[in-house]
Amino acid sequence: MTEAQAARLAIREKRHAGSTRGLAPGYVQCNLAVVPQADAFDFLLYCQRNHKACPVLEVCDPGDPEPKRLAPGADLRTDLPRYAVYRSGERLPDVTDLRALWRPDLVAFLIGSGITFDDALERAGVPTDRHRWVVRSTLPTVPAGRFRGDLIVTMRWLTPQQAIVATQVSSRFPQNHGAPIHIGDPAAIGADLARPLFGPPVERVPEGLVAVFWACGVTPQQAALDARVELLLAHSPAHGFVTDLKADALAVL
Amino acid sequence: MTEAQAARLAIREKRHAGSTRGLAPGYVQCNLAVVPQADAFDFLLYCQRNHKACPVLEVCDPGDPEPKRLAPGADLRTDLPRYAVYRSGERLPDVTDLRALWRPDLVAFLIGSGITFDDALERAGVPTDRHRWVVRSTLPTVPAGRFRGDLIVTMRWLTPQQAIVATQVSSRFPQNHGAPIHIGDPAAIGADLARPLFGPPVERVPEGLVAVFWACGVTPQQAALDARVELLLAHSPAHGFVTDLKADALAVL
Repeated sequence: MTEAQAARLAIREKRHAGSTRGLAPGYVQCNLAVVPQADAFDFLLYCQRNHKACPVLEVCDPGDPEPKRLAPGADLRTDLPRYAVYRSGERLPDVTDLRALWRPDLVAFLIGSGITFDDALERAGVPTDRHRWVVRSTLPTVPAGRFRGDLIVTMRWLTPQQAIVATQVSSRFPQNHGAPIHIGDPAAIGADLARPLFGPPVERVPEGLVAVFWACGVTPQQAALDARVELLLAHSPAHGFVTDLKADALAVL
Repeated sequence: MTEAQAARLAIREKRHAGSTRGLAPGYVQCNLAVVPQADAFDFLLYCQRNHKACPVLEVCDPGDPEPKRLAPGADLRTDLPRYAVYRSGERLPDVTDLRALWRPDLVAFLIGSGITFDDALERAGVPTDRHRWVVRSTLPTVPAGRFRGDLIVTMRWLTPQQAIVATQVSSRFPQNHGAPIHIGDPAAIGADLARPLFGPPVERVPEGLVAVFWACGVTPQQAALDARVELLLAHSPAHGFVTDLKADALAVL
């Protein structure tokens, strides 16, 4: 059994209930978004048009909870530790099992997560465990049907040398957000540091460090939320899906 | 006016009627596939699942013939020199204008073409004007709805050194078929050299040369054909759409 399979089994059997960050390092982790089939075309189109934020790695057939290509035998209803549930844009309490909510018309999307290149960054000497936020920007995404909204970004504070290396390393993962979308002044992209979606509020980038911004996989989830789709099932933040795919297998050169 | 805009205008005004190969070098060229909205979700899903053969660069809104992101102001009904028309899988005579066939429910897909990295290959010393075929293989694609079929591949005969350089260069274009899917024995992937879809029949790879195979953008068109979709409009082979996007802007590292 690989580390990835062992991680999923531990989650399914409720032996692992916390974040998937650091779990099965080197394997691709995915964000999950499940929408009714009626919204699936527009949602897939939204992801295609905003590929850096929404790198779709697999779309299951309607009603099928098994990601046959990324993790044959897995079940997306039980193999993530925690799920967020939204009805018409309203967040309900998190759940740890989707089976009671599953329907034959639901379409599951697995979207590449930035967690995937954390391992490659660490190997290249770029720390990934601190100085990291998820914030809103005012850069518009390209709409598709009902789906639209501003780009949500991951911000990391790095030394100039780390910023260069992180740009090189992340560029090699075009299926996982790829290269940064901005370096430097947070205000230039309207990054809302005062009210981050993840991480404590901050005021300014410390002297000697540079802010580096990547398109974030929370973007499509927020767009689905704002569209008030009738039902949206998603991973709870930092509680992603561990696939059988090695991150290095997705790297370019 | 850029070279790309001038090329499209010449096509629209019927001053250029031939192949787009070699036209506006350095600009991304796309294959076109237009299907009714009823088939659009499955077709987009098929492309997502077979990304190396079907790198979707833009999907227009239903009924909209303007690729707003890749070439604002262009019209996909007039700005390609020649179109193939299929009704329920039967090929009708080619046309040079789609306006009489256009409908409000048609969805246009622009799919990255291998022509895009020809310029980068040439700059790296790999000739692209000869020893090139489009052939069927027996590698299955991943189905989506009614869309399925074997992978169609582009085969080039190269020296071993050219094969290495071509692998490096094409790897930098993951949005345009990317790295080869096979190097060496054509029989290993069931490549049908006796009946190529493009190029003269061949028997064996000459001594000292190596066959290199890329996933080919004809694959989704063939899948749509085999699915006998009610209406399929496509570029005629080698008569693609010239976008405003520089190929180098799509390259990784």
